Amino acid sequence: MTLLLSIQGAGDNWATAAWKERFQRRLPDKKVVLAGQDQFDPALVRFAAVWKPTPGLLASLPNLKVIFNLGAGVDALLADQTLPDVPLVRAVSRDLTQRMTEYVTLHVLLHHRRLPMLQAAQRERVWMARDQWAAGDVRVGVMGLGELGRDASEVLLRLGFRVNGWSRGPRDVAGVTSFHGDDGLKAFLMVTDILVVLLPLTTETRGILNRGLFQQLARDGVLGAPVLINAGRGGLQVETDIISCLDDGTLGAVTLDVFETEPLPAASALWGHPGVLLTPHNAADSDPGAISDLIVKQLLAYERGEPLMNVVKRATGY
Amino acid sequence: MTLLLSIQGAGDNWATAAWKERFQRRLPDKKVVLAGQDQFDPALVRFAAVWKPTPGLLASLPNLKVIFNLGAGVDALLADQTLPDVPLVRAVSRDLTQRMTEYVTLHVLLHHRRLPMLQAAQRERVWMARDQWAAGDVRVGVMGLGELGRDASEVLLRLGFRVNGWSRGPRDVAGVTSFHGDDGLKAFLMVTDILVVLLPLTTETRGILNRGLFQQLARDGVLGAPVLINAGRGGLQVETDIISCLDDGTLGAVTLDVFETEPLPAASALWGHPGVLLTPHNAADSDPGAISDLIVKQLLAYERGEPLMNVVKRATGY
Repeated sequence: MTLLLSIQGAGDNWATAAWKERFQRRLPDKKVVLAGQDQFDPALVRFAAVWKPTPGLLASLPNLKVIFNLGAGVDALLADQTLPDVPLVRAVSRDLTQRMTEYVTLHVLLHHRRLPMLQAAQRERVWMARDQWAAGDVRVGVMGLGELGRDASEVLLRLGFRVNGWSRGPRDVAGVTSFHGDDGLKAFLMVTDILVVLLPLTTETRGILNRGLFQQLARDGVLGAPVLINAGRGGLQVETDIISCLDDGTLGAVTLDVFETEPLPAASALWGHPGVLLTPHNAADSDPGAISDLIVKQLLAYERGEPLMNVVKRATGY
Repeated sequence: MTLLLSIQGAGDNWATAAWKERFQRRLPDKKVVLAGQDQFDPALVRFAAVWKPTPGLLASLPNLKVIFNLGAGVDALLADQTLPDVPLVRAVSRDLTQRMTEYVTLHVLLHHRRLPMLQAAQRERVWMARDQWAAGDVRVGVMGLGELGRDASEVLLRLGFRVNGWSRGPRDVAGVTSFHGDDGLKAFLMVTDILVVLLPLTTETRGILNRGLFQQLARDGVLGAPVLINAGRGGLQVETDIISCLDDGTLGAVTLDVFETEPLPAASALWGHPGVLLTPHNAADSDPGAISDLIVKQLLAYERGEPLMNVVKRATGY
């Protein structure tokens, strides 16, 4: 059998040759080939491990059994209309979850502890001895209660924050007051001071972070105006609305790791806006070693006839 | 009996009148008086609740039984040579501990996730897609394993950091590799990438954060150069050494909440140094309500003949 790799790089160490070496080392008895570089017989390809693969490529493999996505988000993959109807497995590793929890914790604390204000005071050489509210005075609302949302919530609760959560269907997370569905969204937003977004990008969630939503966030909190942290997907957000809502005070501040277009174009007004803290889609870099381990483990389990984990439901898109 | 208050304000809500009101409300049957404002009979004062009280005042109270300090640090109080030899109780509340854990978690994550570099990239409109190491690649060393150090360590471990600790005497903290005493200090520093300082200020710790110590920190870590976070007391640090160690690369970056002189003088080079992130001694603001509750609870317990908690050992100074 053959494992086909089709990978478009993300970070420094996403070189395709290194990915091939990683999989070959873990699967010494299998043939591992790189699309576009190595010769291979399409009929022998049983598995594909991909990140933003060439559209149409996967449809050309008659005996493909499983597609392994190298990341947690499958929105780019599902956009390929020719995607064959075989199980599609997302990579949700403990490593990736930990990194996202780091990011969420850092940026919630940063806004809670008014770091931007303190940094501005430092630049002005002003000793700004203002009282600081406690974590228990702040309501964090987590949109998306999958593995990432649940883990981040656990740490936020440990730090003393009040945590609410929202998801499409009902979810039960210890210590978190959960809301769900269209009906629950309004009630959730009303009690949210810091909105943390970890949603997948689907037809239902595209553009959900818009003025209409921001206007429903809590305005009676200790922070004054609500804060948005989007570490999900750029397609969730309407960037012109974010800017105008920062300008008119509907939002107090935002942290964005993802953007409508990535890399963020140099002309974007987000770069220089005083209310925007932005990071280059690095909230949860995937560790290639951890992902390779995870995929190889699942591939071998499948070969033994065991069930796959984290299979994407095509209907919902995650 | 009388409860005497002698308080020099710290934050917005440290007005002495508000403190009097808080204690009087909780002790409706006792007489609560403010030093320097109210008339009182010194012989009737059994308790004092103080923050940086007027030197000599406490020595003038012949029947004083207990001194309650409104904060965790008693270094200012112990500097009063006339301090009477009665039990001195520190305020270590859950609220204060939680706030310090927030601060430590925020600043460890901030340096780990290279926020200063990313903020500089944003100012330059540069999409800096560098790989990010995992928390498990970073060794945090916590100096001071009292209640504050233990609680912060627990959260850092939950986030995946490797945590080492150092204290004067041996301490056992789950998940933390502990070192102690002068003999253990060198071995502790050798494995420390991010040094978090939560030590009390005593004759032994004054000036401990100096070039000689910084030079012993780990230099083989993923961060490149070690990071210092001091949220203990300003008297622990030698600020000229911090600046020269940042300049020659012995230190990579520092977060300071405390200073040799507070407020930090406008002329200090720390304000404008690119390697310095400073906050105005607000790492763990004490919540007046929580402190009042804690002191009143202890005062009433003492009156019932029960033992006091968090009594300062004069010999060690904490």
